[in-house]
Amino acid sequence: MFEAHFQTFEEPESGVALAARLAAFREELARRKLTGFVVPRADQQQNEYVAPSEERLAWLTGFTGSAGMAIVLTREAAVFVDGRYTLQAAKQVDKKAWHIEPLADPPPETWLASHLAAGDRLGFDPWLHTSAAAERLAAACAKAGAELVAVDSNPLDQVWTERPAPPLGPVSIHGVQFSGEIEAEKLKRIRHEIHKLGAEALVLSDSHAVAWTFNIRGADVSHTPLPLSYAVVPKDGRPTVFIDHRKLSNLTRDHLEQSADVRDPDALVAELTALARAGAAIALDSATAADALSRLIATAGGKPLRGNDPVSLLKAVKNLTEIDGTRTAHQRDAVALTRFLAWIDREAPSGALTEIDTVEALETFRRRTGALKDVSFPTIAGTGPNGAIVHYRVTRKSNRRVAPGDLLLIDSGAQYEDGTTDVTRTIAIGAPTDEMRDRFTRVLRGHIAIARAVFPEGNTGAQLDSFARQYLWQAGLDFEHGTGHGVGSYLSVHEGPARISKLGTTPLKRGMILSNEPGYYKTDAYGIRIENLELVIGADVAGAEKPVNAFETLTLAPIDRRLIDVNMLSATELKWLNDYHARVNRAVRPHLDDNATRLWLDEATAALLPL
Amino acid sequence: MFEAHFQTFEEPESGVALAARLAAFREELARRKLTGFVVPRADQQQNEYVAPSEERLAWLTGFTGSAGMAIVLTREAAVFVDGRYTLQAAKQVDKKAWHIEPLADPPPETWLASHLAAGDRLGFDPWLHTSAAAERLAAACAKAGAELVAVDSNPLDQVWTERPAPPLGPVSIHGVQFSGEIEAEKLKRIRHEIHKLGAEALVLSDSHAVAWTFNIRGADVSHTPLPLSYAVVPKDGRPTVFIDHRKLSNLTRDHLEQSADVRDPDALVAELTALARAGAAIALDSATAADALSRLIATAGGKPLRGNDPVSLLKAVKNLTEIDGTRTAHQRDAVALTRFLAWIDREAPSGALTEIDTVEALETFRRRTGALKDVSFPTIAGTGPNGAIVHYRVTRKSNRRVAPGDLLLIDSGAQYEDGTTDVTRTIAIGAPTDEMRDRFTRVLRGHIAIARAVFPEGNTGAQLDSFARQYLWQAGLDFEHGTGHGVGSYLSVHEGPARISKLGTTPLKRGMILSNEPGYYKTDAYGIRIENLELVIGADVAGAEKPVNAFETLTLAPIDRRLIDVNMLSATELKWLNDYHARVNRAVRPHLDDNATRLWLDEATAALLPL
Repeated sequence: MFEAHFQTFEEPESGVALAARLAAFREELARRKLTGFVVPRADQQQNEYVAPSEERLAWLTGFTGSAGMAIVLTREAAVFVDGRYTLQAAKQVDKKAWHIEPLADPPPETWLASHLAAGDRLGFDPWLHTSAAAERLAAACAKAGAELVAVDSNPLDQVWTERPAPPLGPVSIHGVQFSGEIEAEKLKRIRHEIHKLGAEALVLSDSHAVAWTFNIRGADVSHTPLPLSYAVVPKDGRPTVFIDHRKLSNLTRDHLEQSADVRDPDALVAELTALARAGAAIALDSATAADALSRLIATAGGKPLRGNDPVSLLKAVKNLTEIDGTRTAHQRDAVALTRFLAWIDREAPSGALTEIDTVEALETFRRRTGALKDVSFPTIAGTGPNGAIVHYRVTRKSNRRVAPGDLLLIDSGAQYEDGTTDVTRTIAIGAPTDEMRDRFTRVLRGHIAIARAVFPEGNTGAQLDSFARQYLWQAGLDFEHGTGHGVGSYLSVHEGPARISKLGTTPLKRGMILSNEPGYYKTDAYGIRIENLELVIGADVAGAEKPVNAFETLTLAPIDRRLIDVNMLSATELKWLNDYHARVNRAVRPHLDDNATRLWLDEATAALLPL
Repeated sequence: MFEAHFQTFEEPESGVALAARLAAFREELARRKLTGFVVPRADQQQNEYVAPSEERLAWLTGFTGSAGMAIVLTREAAVFVDGRYTLQAAKQVDKKAWHIEPLADPPPETWLASHLAAGDRLGFDPWLHTSAAAERLAAACAKAGAELVAVDSNPLDQVWTERPAPPLGPVSIHGVQFSGEIEAEKLKRIRHEIHKLGAEALVLSDSHAVAWTFNIRGADVSHTPLPLSYAVVPKDGRPTVFIDHRKLSNLTRDHLEQSADVRDPDALVAELTALARAGAAIALDSATAADALSRLIATAGGKPLRGNDPVSLLKAVKNLTEIDGTRTAHQRDAVALTRFLAWIDREAPSGALTEIDTVEALETFRRRTGALKDVSFPTIAGTGPNGAIVHYRVTRKSNRRVAPGDLLLIDSGAQYEDGTTDVTRTIAIGAPTDEMRDRFTRVLRGHIAIARAVFPEGNTGAQLDSFARQYLWQAGLDFEHGTGHGVGSYLSVHEGPARISKLGTTPLKRGMILSNEPGYYKTDAYGIRIENLELVIGADVAGAEKPVNAFETLTLAPIDRRLIDVNMLSATELKWLNDYHARVNRAVRPHLDDNATRLWLDEATAALLPL
């Protein structure tokens, strides 16, 4: 009945031929007179989801996590992973061939410093590292008396015989009915930013920025409608989009050519070289631009200006069309979510469901809206102890039965053409314990504190983050992730530059969409997270001395009342909850066609009364 | 009856001979082939309070604010001040001779860039700027094709004929009954930090650090018992203290010589040069070390390691003796404050008092404790509109009568040998308006949110700052200063490195003392601030998963109940207030010898009841 089209549950391959791959790679390095090489988990644009052709780290080491790095030296080799992947790496990687080391605290550079010898030549592919990362590697090499060598072609690709072809997902037009602003207007605003930077041109090295600027979407990577591409926008004159022609139909080519020249990606190097030859300052996004771009600009006599891509901030502030779209998308998603939550409540108590069943059902309910383009990330469905693994992703092997007494944490999202959603609900299967209800209510109070926050224009996410944590802190608890991230408009579900986190230094602007997702995780026991998306809006406060902002909650889905200890809520918090549930009911009920789900919704959204 | 010994109310001089001074200074610059010079408001150690001999900016320009800078060029000259001093500068400075420019946004370097000509030689005294500041000046000069020239002797001192002699305040021993740790133990901990830095030696360029390390105090500047001095602590071996011998008695010299060599300040250059000659890495405090120190180390062949002075953090964490001392000091201060507040309530409603009267009375009540060494800063006593000036300091000219209907804001502190205090109370004179009570209650709720905060070990002040602002934000209001600063132990009332502010990135550690002082300022109408000092302590939370901290409130003085709108307080907030007042009553009442003040205290600390 239910199935998932956009998510798989297979264990990644492991062990197969990996020893032979490492040996072949080392031979290739020796042929090139290199004594080592750095293999990051990265594509040319530092994307979160990378194409199979870019999964060099997994191919070489077996490790399939979404962040990591390998360093191969003549005699030793190490895989670097962060804390959430330590266990997974230990399972996937052959420990006879590889050390497993931390990706931070200390960073790989520390390992390098003690394993490189004077005279070593450590190779790296400058297309796969930002300049800042390359500079860190260079400093570590210099410390050891070794040399960092930028290669022209990646030696790993040389030995990766069965390497998949790069993706050729068809490009589509993201019409003005969704984008709300034509390319010419966006380009006008971008040129204004280029002038402010004092640059001759701006390189869009982030495909998200290209997609936003030229109102196109693509299908090159999972879960994000990215058209892998580059663009160069000169301060005056016509921009160029660099994209594989095979991804374009006549229609999309015509669309692009209305505002840009269209060339194949190989042409980028020549065009940048030509631009830089005049001694021009060329702006690059320090977060996504490959070190190779800075190098080629500098080599040609130009001046790379590395900084924050101005498009990132323009894109983060949604216009009225995008805001209307996201409201519609959330309304649609709410109906699917309600059907799903009602189904869970019906099916789970018997103990018949597994985590994978829930993922398949949720995707199916969303697909039945007729508007689902993709899930916005692989659904995290963790029951019991699996819920405590923050980045859990269910596989056939880890798949766990949803048992009475469990908390089931489901974090999921949808890509609709009018908006991207991201929502987490935690569901009590059977009777929850008092501790679970205490923890859930503390998380909920933090969630409400963010949802209700009123704050001056110019405030950053860092200035709000603690509101989400205060009630956990009071019990000596916390959660080890940020409170919220930016969300794109039919683009990446993790979008910069703003976030709600102690590191969130970008001011929150009206029109930004951020997640509000405090949690609590008890290792080996259960996980709790409550996540809604929030839109930054102006707040109408009588007598205000400065412009103030607030959040409009976009996500509409019942929050499990069985997990709430009403005694712990203030009157204001209880009112927020009841108002929210009334709003969910009003938005969803008219779209339900069966009585059972209507009844379920009425109960799930009924007002809670103080005891 | 009342008088102030530690604070004056005179207007600074203005106009007198200033034009002649500027002309003489320009002649001296011309003699030295300089086309300009930078005159910061700074001494060699970037102290907050500087000796009269260091008031170069005031002597040259007439501007007497506590922060600022002048730049004199051949034809033009500018005084740079921050927003709080714009009006004062406009009054004090001759606008025919000087432009008045912002000290930040944009910084003076921007002005320089557009006023320097290629070939200009801009002089600066490297003893009066940190290296970071010197680098900013150098970059601005380079941009304009000009040269930044470090002078050997300050040309302004050459023409400042009546320049006061440097202070020679006698040094005293800060006994172990107050400091709680002997010098040898402190030096052991400092050497451990020097080892961690990988340095051969650490320069204590901050007199506060010298005072703390060697358990001495001085009398060289106002309000802070600083012994102006330097020290050099080698990673092994005996440190040297550089201090004018005339400030030492036999007793204090003997005390110092138990743990250090004692030399005159002139010897510092030779000793650092000798140390640096061996190519040694020498650690310097980037916040206080003069650029001249870095230069002389580098010139001698050493390596200046600029960073955070490790003594700053050691000093900020108070030991048990210091904590006991500060509790005693606050208890003593509380009795004086109570007498003062009772006196205000008795005298002010008739309209008989002025701001200066209140300052004199408060100092007198404190002096009568028999333990007052100094006020810890000039008391801010602002009634009505003067209360809205955050850094207001009353003079005979600005002195305002305390009138019925006013709010009177009094921010003051005491230096006792066992501790430094800092407290602000806002007092209703006659009946306050509803708006005043609303604003006061919002400020109070923020104050209570900080006082009651519970937070994980490792949290920074930035993670708490918003708690103080949230109720003001809800009404579209805010205050434009940090929520709190660190406080020394019979040292500076403004002590780093921790603070409660969006810029406070230092983790709060148990034993630190911080102010909690949210406020609200209505320009031309009134000011509100409620300030207590808070000690960071461990919190005992059942079931905590990590170490958690909280605050113990040190300051004990009634908070004006007439300004509180009980309806706006939560039950928890009301309980905090009533508990606090009960504690104040218990601590102060036994020390009162007159019935009238006892009655006043009972009333001022009586429990408020919910309406």
